[in-house]
Amino acid sequence: MSYIKKLKCLLCGAEYSPEEVKYTCPKCGDEGILEIIYDYEEIKKHFTKESLTDSRDYSMWRYLPLLPVDDPSKIGPLKVGWTPLYSAERIRKDLDMQYLWIKDDGRNPTASLKDRASAIAIVKAQELGEKIITCASTGNAASSLAGASASVGLKNYIFVPKTAPKAKIAQLLVFGATVFAVNGTYDEAFELSIEATKEFGWYNRNTAFNPYMVEGKKTVALEIIEEMNFEVPDYVFVSVGDGCIISGVAKGYTDMYSLGFIDRLPKLVAVQAEGCRPIVDAVNGDGTVKFVEPNTLADSIAVGVPRNRVMAIRDIENSEGFGIAVSDDEIIEAIKYLGSTEGIFAEPAGSTAFAGALKALKNGKISKADKVVIIVTGNGLKDVESAIKAGGEPLVINPDIESIKKALNK
Amino acid sequence: MSYIKKLKCLLCGAEYSPEEVKYTCPKCGDEGILEIIYDYEEIKKHFTKESLTDSRDYSMWRYLPLLPVDDPSKIGPLKVGWTPLYSAERIRKDLDMQYLWIKDDGRNPTASLKDRASAIAIVKAQELGEKIITCASTGNAASSLAGASASVGLKNYIFVPKTAPKAKIAQLLVFGATVFAVNGTYDEAFELSIEATKEFGWYNRNTAFNPYMVEGKKTVALEIIEEMNFEVPDYVFVSVGDGCIISGVAKGYTDMYSLGFIDRLPKLVAVQAEGCRPIVDAVNGDGTVKFVEPNTLADSIAVGVPRNRVMAIRDIENSEGFGIAVSDDEIIEAIKYLGSTEGIFAEPAGSTAFAGALKALKNGKISKADKVVIIVTGNGLKDVESAIKAGGEPLVINPDIESIKKALNK
Repeated sequence: MSYIKKLKCLLCGAEYSPEEVKYTCPKCGDEGILEIIYDYEEIKKHFTKESLTDSRDYSMWRYLPLLPVDDPSKIGPLKVGWTPLYSAERIRKDLDMQYLWIKDDGRNPTASLKDRASAIAIVKAQELGEKIITCASTGNAASSLAGASASVGLKNYIFVPKTAPKAKIAQLLVFGATVFAVNGTYDEAFELSIEATKEFGWYNRNTAFNPYMVEGKKTVALEIIEEMNFEVPDYVFVSVGDGCIISGVAKGYTDMYSLGFIDRLPKLVAVQAEGCRPIVDAVNGDGTVKFVEPNTLADSIAVGVPRNRVMAIRDIENSEGFGIAVSDDEIIEAIKYLGSTEGIFAEPAGSTAFAGALKALKNGKISKADKVVIIVTGNGLKDVESAIKAGGEPLVINPDIESIKKALNK
Repeated sequence: MSYIKKLKCLLCGAEYSPEEVKYTCPKCGDEGILEIIYDYEEIKKHFTKESLTDSRDYSMWRYLPLLPVDDPSKIGPLKVGWTPLYSAERIRKDLDMQYLWIKDDGRNPTASLKDRASAIAIVKAQELGEKIITCASTGNAASSLAGASASVGLKNYIFVPKTAPKAKIAQLLVFGATVFAVNGTYDEAFELSIEATKEFGWYNRNTAFNPYMVEGKKTVALEIIEEMNFEVPDYVFVSVGDGCIISGVAKGYTDMYSLGFIDRLPKLVAVQAEGCRPIVDAVNGDGTVKFVEPNTLADSIAVGVPRNRVMAIRDIENSEGFGIAVSDDEIIEAIKYLGSTEGIFAEPAGSTAFAGALKALKNGKISKADKVVIIVTGNGLKDVESAIKAGGEPLVINPDIESIKKALNK
């Protein structure tokens, strides 16, 4: 059994046992997102800094006592997590920064951070004896769920906006998902998937609906903490769509703080595209979220109605962080800069956090002496069209030396 | 300093010290591929099964004493290797196989096995003080070299056939490579890159020209051995283009055997596409390679003039293995089967080895009781067009429940 003490509604504060609720607060409805509260005193008895450091399980499951898993035999076979954290030496030199770490979460099984949440989703679905699992997604959560489901033989129905990048849809289909490409936005696909869940009785993995997804995503922060040898950075930059990853990062640091493994918390910075910045405007303003029509090429964060807004804004404000918006051009430039200086290939939403850090440095919001962590949430192979915008064109030549010389002299 | 004893020409048997030669045998010319011979007795003094098992370096560098590295400070930052080996339970059940392991080498930094060789290439280039590195490639070796070079700031000139998949070219450009898209085949791009190396004095990473590439690729086998707890399978299935990976696998097993870490060697099976099967025909025939015009969608192994043919055929024959060819349709079907049963997404050349194993099982070339390892050499995101052929089409629907019902009933 897990060490969950209770599930607490973010809106009304009502508390439930895991057996009492499946998704959101029965009193508050779909808006009443539930937060998982652990019994840290009990966890401490079985899980210490030493036992963790000794562990040879180099995957997200090294943090099992901090995860909502009742039956570890339901964990899927795909190796999720323990992605590399790079001390980005070449960028630091180039920008004269003292400390910069880049977490490449595009190294997960389906090439995005979302694998961490889907790994939890398939455990919960199997624990409940569910046979069909569903979700709505801009693409990455979907492909991660389809891959994880395939690995354990769960049937899955996936809702994506019809405009999702071809690579993500290809992943879904190869993983054997039934894919509904919805004529509409991600926000409409999300509503439809909730409706379908109620109509057909499928198990739903949606962000900020299923309360356990933040718990999977927090493992990215747990890893960063260990990879930094329990040192805490000043800032963690996170690209934000629904706001579930940034809450996961907050939860990971809070978990480690509650266990006494670290002695302070980092400031969290939400980075969004200028064409879709509801969370940035809310945290930099009075905390009120105004829904928007997304207009950005960073498809994974083209979320006009951020589902986890309440929790995300609370977490950013509690951390004394801030929001920053970057243009699509800055996102594209950051892809090229990251790729050509460090060999890390990010999709647009993956480079958005990095673009935000570059801008914050330029604007003086952070200093060159600050300790900064960037999370790259997805691999660039997921969106080749955008990569080509970033990379430019090859030199087409005939197979002879003269053609090389001519091309080089141009 | 490394534990290299000598470099030995595969054709004439002449021996050289590492300082004497850079690429191929001076007597035999470009055909005289050199093989790296280690001083195993010396290695044994510093590298034991116990020291290896104790190592916490979960990357290809855990095998440093078996690698041609003189100056470990030149190792790049990208985390290469220690990719997962899956005991493919769902496929085993489905096919009633007793033992099947799948190594997912698409989990490397640029999403292919080639990262293992490129990681060595940038070490050697830096050790020699080279400033520019080049290679010809069907795509994966190129993108791995561009990524690795970016991570250490080496300028790189890359030759690919103009027809290389868009995703691989996009990777190259994002990594900041100068990309020559050659109007011609891979075989022509290869010749041109050798010519350019001689003309411009660049450092060349080409397969079966640079003698150290097999050494990087062998780490995939070293890992499989450890991941299988030093148990040796009956067969290892490898997709074959130039034949450098399969020789790497042979070398990895031979290294471990020479050190006494394992007590036998596996049979190696070369899998090629029916439209490009020079190695398969040679090993199943009299050992003579007839060059062909490649005709397959598996671009990474569309190699009509296999550069490492002599070594590959020797290694397959020594292992008492065989060759098997599969159709493009079988390659595509294997992508879908692998994806939908295990959540592993392979590019066409990545699923070719698996398609070969399925066929060998069907044809009775191997039995259901054999211990079989499959190497998946590259991720499916590298070739989305082929993935779409494998996966099929999504169900396009309007955002309402009725549309879901209608789509499901079709």
